Amino acid sequence: MSAYDDLMAFQRETEALSQVAGRLGWDQETVMPRGAAEQRGEEMGVLEGILHARRIDPRIGDWLAAAEPTDPVAEANLRHIRRSFERTARVPARLASALARTTSVAQGKWAAARAADDFAAFAPVLAEIVALKREEAAALANGGAPYDALLDDYEPGATADTLSAMFGALRPRLIALRDACLGADRQPTRLDGTFPPDAQLMLSEKLAAAFGYDFNRGRIDRAVHPFSSGSGMDVRITTRTDPTDPFNCLYSTIHEVGHATYEQNIDDAYLFTPLGQGVSMGVHESQSRLYENQLGRSRAFTGWLHGQMTDTFGDPGMDPDAFFGTVNRLHKGYIRTEADEVQYNLHVLLRFDLERQLIGGTLDPADLDEAWNDRFKADFGYRPSRASEGCLQDVHWSVGLFGYFPTYSLGNVYAGCLYAALRRDLPDLDAALAAGDPRPATDWLRDRVQVHGGLYRPRDLIERATGEAPSEAPLLEYLEAKFGAIYGL
Amino acid sequence: MSAYDDLMAFQRETEALSQVAGRLGWDQETVMPRGAAEQRGEEMGVLEGILHARRIDPRIGDWLAAAEPTDPVAEANLRHIRRSFERTARVPARLASALARTTSVAQGKWAAARAADDFAAFAPVLAEIVALKREEAAALANGGAPYDALLDDYEPGATADTLSAMFGALRPRLIALRDACLGADRQPTRLDGTFPPDAQLMLSEKLAAAFGYDFNRGRIDRAVHPFSSGSGMDVRITTRTDPTDPFNCLYSTIHEVGHATYEQNIDDAYLFTPLGQGVSMGVHESQSRLYENQLGRSRAFTGWLHGQMTDTFGDPGMDPDAFFGTVNRLHKGYIRTEADEVQYNLHVLLRFDLERQLIGGTLDPADLDEAWNDRFKADFGYRPSRASEGCLQDVHWSVGLFGYFPTYSLGNVYAGCLYAALRRDLPDLDAALAAGDPRPATDWLRDRVQVHGGLYRPRDLIERATGEAPSEAPLLEYLEAKFGAIYGL
Repeated sequence: MSAYDDLMAFQRETEALSQVAGRLGWDQETVMPRGAAEQRGEEMGVLEGILHARRIDPRIGDWLAAAEPTDPVAEANLRHIRRSFERTARVPARLASALARTTSVAQGKWAAARAADDFAAFAPVLAEIVALKREEAAALANGGAPYDALLDDYEPGATADTLSAMFGALRPRLIALRDACLGADRQPTRLDGTFPPDAQLMLSEKLAAAFGYDFNRGRIDRAVHPFSSGSGMDVRITTRTDPTDPFNCLYSTIHEVGHATYEQNIDDAYLFTPLGQGVSMGVHESQSRLYENQLGRSRAFTGWLHGQMTDTFGDPGMDPDAFFGTVNRLHKGYIRTEADEVQYNLHVLLRFDLERQLIGGTLDPADLDEAWNDRFKADFGYRPSRASEGCLQDVHWSVGLFGYFPTYSLGNVYAGCLYAALRRDLPDLDAALAAGDPRPATDWLRDRVQVHGGLYRPRDLIERATGEAPSEAPLLEYLEAKFGAIYGL
Repeated sequence: MSAYDDLMAFQRETEALSQVAGRLGWDQETVMPRGAAEQRGEEMGVLEGILHARRIDPRIGDWLAAAEPTDPVAEANLRHIRRSFERTARVPARLASALARTTSVAQGKWAAARAADDFAAFAPVLAEIVALKREEAAALANGGAPYDALLDDYEPGATADTLSAMFGALRPRLIALRDACLGADRQPTRLDGTFPPDAQLMLSEKLAAAFGYDFNRGRIDRAVHPFSSGSGMDVRITTRTDPTDPFNCLYSTIHEVGHATYEQNIDDAYLFTPLGQGVSMGVHESQSRLYENQLGRSRAFTGWLHGQMTDTFGDPGMDPDAFFGTVNRLHKGYIRTEADEVQYNLHVLLRFDLERQLIGGTLDPADLDEAWNDRFKADFGYRPSRASEGCLQDVHWSVGLFGYFPTYSLGNVYAGCLYAALRRDLPDLDAALAAGDPRPATDWLRDRVQVHGGLYRPRDLIERATGEAPSEAPLLEYLEAKFGAIYGL
C-alpha cells in the first residue's frame, strides 16, 4: 500500500461516516419523533466528534507529505484532502468548540427573536458569533483576506473582489429591469384558486422524473423547508405544499431535483472520495436554479406544464402565454426565498455586502437591523417594518454561515453561462421542453458538469463546460430578454 | 474523574453510536431507496467497525480493573460492560470476521433456497455457519457448556438445562391441550371478509395508544416484517397489513408496542448506559407476548375490540363471545409466526432441541431437513412437504442466531408468571380491559419490570416482580383455563 492508498482508505471511511451523519440529518427533518430531539443531539454530537477527530488525525499530514499523485483524479483528491486538513488544523480546538456551542444556542434565540420580531433579543448572540467568526476568519486566512477565507469554505477559489465586480455589474441592471417590469402597462395576473396538496405532490413527482431524478436512488418526502440530502446512490429530497400556491411545491421540487441529480450523476467511481460530491455551493446552485428557472420557467416548458395543471387541477382560466407570465410574475416583497427571478439576486447582494462589513469590522452587529433596512429601502424602494421581514428572516448567520449567501448569486451567474452554452449546443431544445422533456438539457449538464463531481475547480469546471470564463453577462441578457418579452418592454 | 467515570463516558459514546446504527437499520427496512443497498452496506460496515474497535478497546480492561462500584447501578453497569468486553475478547478477530462474512452471504442463499424450496442449496453454507458457531461457542464457553455460551448472548444467565426442564414440562401438556381443542365439538369460526388496509392502520394506531405507546417518542411505519427499533426517546415500530386478515396487523402492532413501551419506559437516567435497554430477549418477549395475548386476546379486551371493529369495518357477523373464540382460534399449520397461542411454543421447542444438536455436533447440518420433518410429525401429527414450510421458514440460523429461539418460549413462560402476579394485584383489571384500557396492567409492568432496564438479572427481575421463582406452571394454567373455556373442554 502506498501512502496515497492508505490515505484514501482512511478517507473512504470518513466519507462513509459523513454520509451517515447526513442521513441522520434527513431523518431529523422528516420522520424523527418530536420527543427525540435531545437524544438525537447527543448521538449527532458523538458522531461529529468522531468525524472531527478523523479530520484532524495527524496521520493525514504524514500521508499527504508522502503521497505522490499519478493521475488527475489522485491530484484532485489530494488537493481536496490537503485543503480540508489545513483548514481544520488552523482553527484552534477552543475556537471550534466555542463556535459549535454558541451557534447551537443562537439558532434557538434567532427563532424566538424572529417569532417575536425582536432584533434586540438576537443582537447580543449575533455579536458573539460575529466575534468568533472574525477570529476564525483571521485564523483561516493565515495572513490573507479574512472574508475570503470564510467564502472559501463554500466556494473554493472565489474571492470577494471577483464577486464584487460581478455583482456590481448585476445590481444596477437588475434594479432597472425590476423597475421597468413593475412599471409596465402589461402585468401578468396571479394564479387564483385552491390546489389539493396530494395532487400537487403527484404532479411534482412527475416533474421530478421528467427532470431525470432517479427514484430508485432517492425519495421525496415532505418537510418544513425543501432540501436535498445525501450523495451517490441515496439522494433524497423534500418538498412542501401550500394549497393556494402550487408553484411553491412544483418549483421547489424542480430546484431540489437540480441539486439531487447533480449528486446522483457524479461518476460512481468517486463514491466515498472527496470527488464524490458537488464541487461547490455555487456550482450546486447553478444546477438547481437552471433546472428551476431557465428550464422549468421557460415559455416552452410552462406551455407543457399548463396542460399538466389543467389535467390535474382543472382549467386555470388563462392561455399558455398568460400562464407563462403568471409563473414568472414579479411582485413586491421582503422575503428572499419568495422572490422572483429578477429580484432574487438583489436580496443576496444586500446580504453579501452587509456580511462583509460585519466580518470586516466596519458594521457593529448591534446596528445590523438599521443597516439592513436602509439598504433594502435603497434597493427596493420600500422599508421593512418588522425584523422578521428584515435581517431576521434567514437562519444562516445564526448558525455561523458567513460567506455562504454570495454562492446563491454566483450560482445564478454560472447558470446563466451554462444556459447560454447549452442553448448554442441544443438548437432544438424548445421542442423538447414544449413536450415536457428537459432531458436534452439535463443530459448536457450531466455530461459537462455533474459527472465530474469534485474533479475540477469550480471556475475551471464552468469554463470547460462553456468554453468561456464565467461572467454575469449571459445571465443579464437572458433575464432582460425573457422579462422584456413577458412585460412587453 | 474516577476510572468508573472514564469508563462510563467512553461507554456513553459507544451506546450513542449503537443507537445511530440501529436507526440506519430502521431506515433500511422502511424508507431506504432500493438502489442504495450497496452504498448503505459500506456505510454500515464502517460504523460497525468503529463500534467493534470501541468494544475491544484495551482501555476498557484497565478501567474495569480499577473501577470500584459505589451503588447497585454502578455495579450493574460494570457487570454488563465486563460481560460484553470479556465475550468480545474471547472471539478471535479471524473468527469474528469469518462469521460476519459467511452469514452475510448465507442470508441471500437462504432467501433463494427458501423461494426455491431447495434445502440442498442451503445445506453447505449452513454447515459452514454451524462449524463457525461451534468454534465461537467453544471460545466463548471457556471450558463451560458451548450452547449455554451462545444462549447467554440473548438471555444472560440462562442455561439449556434449566430451559429443558421448563420446556419438558410444557410440551406434553401443550400437545394434550392442542389435541383437545382441535378435537372439540365446539369450534370457533374464522373471520371472513376484506378489511381496508388504511382502516386497519388507523385502528392499530388507536390500539398502540391504548396500550401506552408514546407517539411523541416513536412512530409507526409499514415494513415487510413487523419490528421495534431504538431505545430511549426514539423507539419506532413497524407493522404490515393483509386485507383478509386484520388480526395480523392489529396483533403485530400490539406485540411490537409491548417491545417498544418496554424501551420507552426504562428510567431516563439509564439512557446511553448498558442499563438503558431491555435486559434480555426473554424479558423483552414476555412484554410483547403479554400485551398481545394475555391482555390483547383476553375475553374482556376482545369484547371492546369487537365494538371497535364493528365501528371500523362494519358488523363482523358474530357476537363478542364468538369473536373471542375467533381471535383465539387454533388452526393447523407449519409456520411458527402464524401459530396460535397454544401451539406457538411447540414450534419453538422443536427449534431449541434441533439447534442444541447442531451445536453439540450430534446432528449433521445436511440432515436438518429430515430431522425437522420427523420431529414436526411427532409433535404436530403431519409432516411438512416443502422446505419453506419446514426448516427454511425462519431467517435466524442463516444469520448465525443460535440460542435465540428458546428466548421466545422463555418469554411466554415469563409472561405467564407476570400475568398471574398482576391479576392478583389488579382484581378489577377485566373492567378496565372491557373498556379498552389495558393501562392498569401496562402501568404495573412499567413499574415492576420495564423501568428497571438492565438493572437486575433477568430471572431476578421476574422474581422481584412476581414474588416467585419463574416457572412454566402459570402459563400452562392460564392456557388450559382460557382455551378450556373457549373450546368447552
